[in-house]
Amino acid sequence: MILDRISSANDVKKLEKDEIPVLCSEIRDFLIRHISETGGHLASNLGVVELTVAMHLCFDPTKDRLIWDVGHQSYTHKILTGRKDAFDRLRKEGGISGFPKSEESICDPFNTGHSSTSISAGLGLAAARELTGEDYAVVSVIGDGALTGGMAYEAMNNASKLKQNFIIVLNDNKMSISENVGGVSTYLSGIRTAAFYRGLKNGVKESLGSFPHGEKIIESISRTKNSIKQVLIPGMYFENMGIIYLGPVDGHDVQALTKILREARKVDGPVLVHAVTKKGKGYLPAERHPERFHGAEPFDISTGLPKEHRTKPNYTDIFSTVMRKLGDREEKLVAITAAMAEGTGLKRFRNLFPERFFDVGIAEGHAVTFAAALASRGLKPVVAVYSSFLQRAYDQILHDVCIQSLPVVFCIDRAGLVGSDGETHQGIFDISYLGSIPNMTLMAPKNKWELSDMMKFALALEKPVAIRYPKGEAWDGLKEYRAKLAYGKSEVIFEEKDIALFAYGSMVKTAAAVREGLIEKGRTATLINARFAKPLDKDLLRSLEKNHSLLVVLEENVRSGGLGEQVEDFVLEEGLKLHVLSIALPDAYIEHGSVQEQKEKTGLTTDQILKRILDFTGKDA
Amino acid sequence: MILDRISSANDVKKLEKDEIPVLCSEIRDFLIRHISETGGHLASNLGVVELTVAMHLCFDPTKDRLIWDVGHQSYTHKILTGRKDAFDRLRKEGGISGFPKSEESICDPFNTGHSSTSISAGLGLAAARELTGEDYAVVSVIGDGALTGGMAYEAMNNASKLKQNFIIVLNDNKMSISENVGGVSTYLSGIRTAAFYRGLKNGVKESLGSFPHGEKIIESISRTKNSIKQVLIPGMYFENMGIIYLGPVDGHDVQALTKILREARKVDGPVLVHAVTKKGKGYLPAERHPERFHGAEPFDISTGLPKEHRTKPNYTDIFSTVMRKLGDREEKLVAITAAMAEGTGLKRFRNLFPERFFDVGIAEGHAVTFAAALASRGLKPVVAVYSSFLQRAYDQILHDVCIQSLPVVFCIDRAGLVGSDGETHQGIFDISYLGSIPNMTLMAPKNKWELSDMMKFALALEKPVAIRYPKGEAWDGLKEYRAKLAYGKSEVIFEEKDIALFAYGSMVKTAAAVREGLIEKGRTATLINARFAKPLDKDLLRSLEKNHSLLVVLEENVRSGGLGEQVEDFVLEEGLKLHVLSIALPDAYIEHGSVQEQKEKTGLTTDQILKRILDFTGKDA
Repeated sequence: MILDRISSANDVKKLEKDEIPVLCSEIRDFLIRHISETGGHLASNLGVVELTVAMHLCFDPTKDRLIWDVGHQSYTHKILTGRKDAFDRLRKEGGISGFPKSEESICDPFNTGHSSTSISAGLGLAAARELTGEDYAVVSVIGDGALTGGMAYEAMNNASKLKQNFIIVLNDNKMSISENVGGVSTYLSGIRTAAFYRGLKNGVKESLGSFPHGEKIIESISRTKNSIKQVLIPGMYFENMGIIYLGPVDGHDVQALTKILREARKVDGPVLVHAVTKKGKGYLPAERHPERFHGAEPFDISTGLPKEHRTKPNYTDIFSTVMRKLGDREEKLVAITAAMAEGTGLKRFRNLFPERFFDVGIAEGHAVTFAAALASRGLKPVVAVYSSFLQRAYDQILHDVCIQSLPVVFCIDRAGLVGSDGETHQGIFDISYLGSIPNMTLMAPKNKWELSDMMKFALALEKPVAIRYPKGEAWDGLKEYRAKLAYGKSEVIFEEKDIALFAYGSMVKTAAAVREGLIEKGRTATLINARFAKPLDKDLLRSLEKNHSLLVVLEENVRSGGLGEQVEDFVLEEGLKLHVLSIALPDAYIEHGSVQEQKEKTGLTTDQILKRILDFTGKDA
Repeated sequence: MILDRISSANDVKKLEKDEIPVLCSEIRDFLIRHISETGGHLASNLGVVELTVAMHLCFDPTKDRLIWDVGHQSYTHKILTGRKDAFDRLRKEGGISGFPKSEESICDPFNTGHSSTSISAGLGLAAARELTGEDYAVVSVIGDGALTGGMAYEAMNNASKLKQNFIIVLNDNKMSISENVGGVSTYLSGIRTAAFYRGLKNGVKESLGSFPHGEKIIESISRTKNSIKQVLIPGMYFENMGIIYLGPVDGHDVQALTKILREARKVDGPVLVHAVTKKGKGYLPAERHPERFHGAEPFDISTGLPKEHRTKPNYTDIFSTVMRKLGDREEKLVAITAAMAEGTGLKRFRNLFPERFFDVGIAEGHAVTFAAALASRGLKPVVAVYSSFLQRAYDQILHDVCIQSLPVVFCIDRAGLVGSDGETHQGIFDISYLGSIPNMTLMAPKNKWELSDMMKFALALEKPVAIRYPKGEAWDGLKEYRAKLAYGKSEVIFEEKDIALFAYGSMVKTAAAVREGLIEKGRTATLINARFAKPLDKDLLRSLEKNHSLLVVLEENVRSGGLGEQVEDFVLEEGLKLHVLSIALPDAYIEHGSVQEQKEKTGLTTDQILKRILDFTGKDA
């Protein structure tokens, strides 16, 4: 195996030229084999094997700065920089991260995770180099999908001022996670089309060349300012921003790639290399269904099918079904996604109601203000988004939706702990960052039926609303408790005394189990499904004083700004005679691992909570 | 006066053609006269008088949707839509807002305030029109400065999908608030340059026309895909995104503007009209110093100088001086602004240390990640930004700065109540949205000397830090209290018993006055300058239990997620025997008015707080 000879950074440079294609093939096999066992991002990684190898041939990753936008396509980079043997524990607790991480290797100069940050980071590293007089190359690899994010454009707009070398590699696979959208995407596809490309590069030359004096004409045009450039160069869009364009180049041809990267390295100032790649390259199931192999669960290599078949729906499935059904009934319902039609479950809605479906690209800020404007004209927009990505639209929610109190419904998936993606993708801040925004209503369902009820309730409410639900299987417990939703009112499930458990969303299930544990210990406990994290159900909280001494608030969100603090604030303000025990996530980023491991680490398991309550009541109640 | 005949929307259409220039001149006089009295945005409004008049001649503002990006240039629009007589109370409590506001007029279809939202909003209104089958034009007016914001690009990238009419008017005044920056700006200036423009439009034609068979060649090229378009059309950058480009047109020529706007209206799909305007047009002091007349205080018309001369420095001045001094001493210090070199006080630093100064355009997201990358290489970046604009970079702070715990220093101006700009510009959320981010440290100075001390302390700290300070005069009280800063430690200014006042930033001054009031009433009170809103000074809070029964927390931030709630959480968790009275801003947006009026409205004046404490202690302590 050639791969056996790759044990640290720059080893790839020792290979013979004809060993490179074999290495690429071995890396592909390695990726497929490992990811089929551990799960992880497959399609995107298969797409950049040659590109990564070429970059490692042209640059020194221990010295030069290679930045991977989004970062989930950095597996080959990890393999080539001494982390090959760690792939057994990829994305597992204590193992390597699925994203570049500076703590993990000096070859990861800047952490990534969210989209469209790599050019900004690269520019910062390049500016630092100019100020400190160091000498290293900076290469930011960004997908055409990530290029739909405004931040990438902000950075490109700043790149033109740079006087020294800075390389942007456009990894153009015609996809973000879903198929890519928008004017720039159309533009790129124009460049890609061989006919168009040749049409510009040769067609004009030819058409002129066939005329008498043709060559003189070409010369003359080239003197006419830079107009000839506009005729001959396909990347005028980038050149207009002051970035030199090279390409397109076949992103699976290592030789062509190294040639163009070496050319790019010689350029002073910002340069963009346009590499055309295929997501899932070399593994047919992934080539055919790149979105299914975006973030894959362990799968059977021969069939490409998941090893474990889900028998129960997750919350995304429930959301998907409800949207489909409501789409029929409610013609003002529109759905908006930022390049996540699959991930958020909007695919079926898109297929059934294409005219009411908007995929805006990886552009959460635009998505939210666009939704606000739709709502201002009486439509009922649902923005389906992952909790950690909605962070990108904080100001648009505050400034464009909530000041005008426009009825946009945010359906927030992956809220709470997310497991193997780790720090960058944790959905543990939404209650805090949304809760301090005036005019916002926050809800979370205890089980799958309640998600459906809440969506209908939210769409009827003429206010901004967010409904958050976690990754994974939708709970089907407490089925018989389905009291009609009322604004700002919680649901008392079991009414007893002494201890009151006040939980929302995923933590209602935990609270129910904690209550069982308390009963086993001979205690009694009231169980309340808060339903609303905002506004607070003040009447209910007041009523608890009578028969309870301890109020336990449970939430899968950071403590600061969470529901626990709102409850504490109210209890103190009203002077209620209740002890409050607030159980929430700590003020910390939480690394990759399983959701269960992350709960254990942060004290959110049933046993841990039960122990805390018993300790507390032992000393106090 | 022709202006007297303009009392409601569409009145401008009744004027004779030759009355239009007179009207424009009268509007200019009106604006100068009124703003010289009330203060407000002058330069930007003088720049769009003709453009606004032309839009009102071509569109019906009661039916068509005219959206002003940023919105502070909408004064002429307000004058032409029945709000002329309200200008005496412009930006004053109960008067009209300085921004478009849907509550104020049906002619303001969507509120604006922050930059770069207008194309997203316009697209939403256009999409709504297509879905509901209504009939109205949508016009989004956006400055070249706002075009440096990524959100504008996200929206433009989505515009190409639109099949019906949507007009973007690019109000190109070569400025954002400071001079505009970046590749796109250079590109636009290329278009503007008549030579370049003619060079493309005629030069190529001429150079070809002079050759034999020239016309045939042009014909042949135009058949070679759309290459001829690239030669002949200056707005290829926009055309590449699928947006038809018209212009450039003289933005002060009403006739030319109406002609091009009518042309634009006929186009199916998105079209951009490029109007070149001059900020401050028609008032020499504003033409010469547009940044001084951006948001102006009342001024003397004949000299252009402010009516009231500030004798005391404001916090921006202090920041400016400290940055200048530290720039000399600390060569790793770099400063970053998002198009606000003047507003944030970085102008002097820019002039002295141009190579360490970065104006990234109106691009807060990029600014923050760029700063993070600089910090990762050992530089000491200071991001100077207004509180409400930093909201745009929430995810970049959380994801790019704080996960890696990179030492970026955020100097947050306009934190707290901001007065006449109103809802969109209130800096009252920063403690909440930053406080829930792990690894973040939050500070606020009690007076001008402490701002200086905190900046030095923050730059020495190897962590992300934010220092917030309010608009207006820097307090010079409590001068003799200047204990050395220690991480996470507050400063006990007066140590007494019974009542403890725990305040940070601007509220230390208020707390000192409240304490005087308590003494007058025969009470005693400890005064503590919290200094840090995060982390909490737990040791100090614990120590208060001994001699105090009431702890009053005072802050100029919304209650949810503020310091008050952190203190309450700790007091309950520790079971401290302290009553807590948390005084903070309510969960609401706060309209324009003076800062003093806004404090009264929200209960933050000395008298109101004193009364609340006396009421509380009367019943409880």
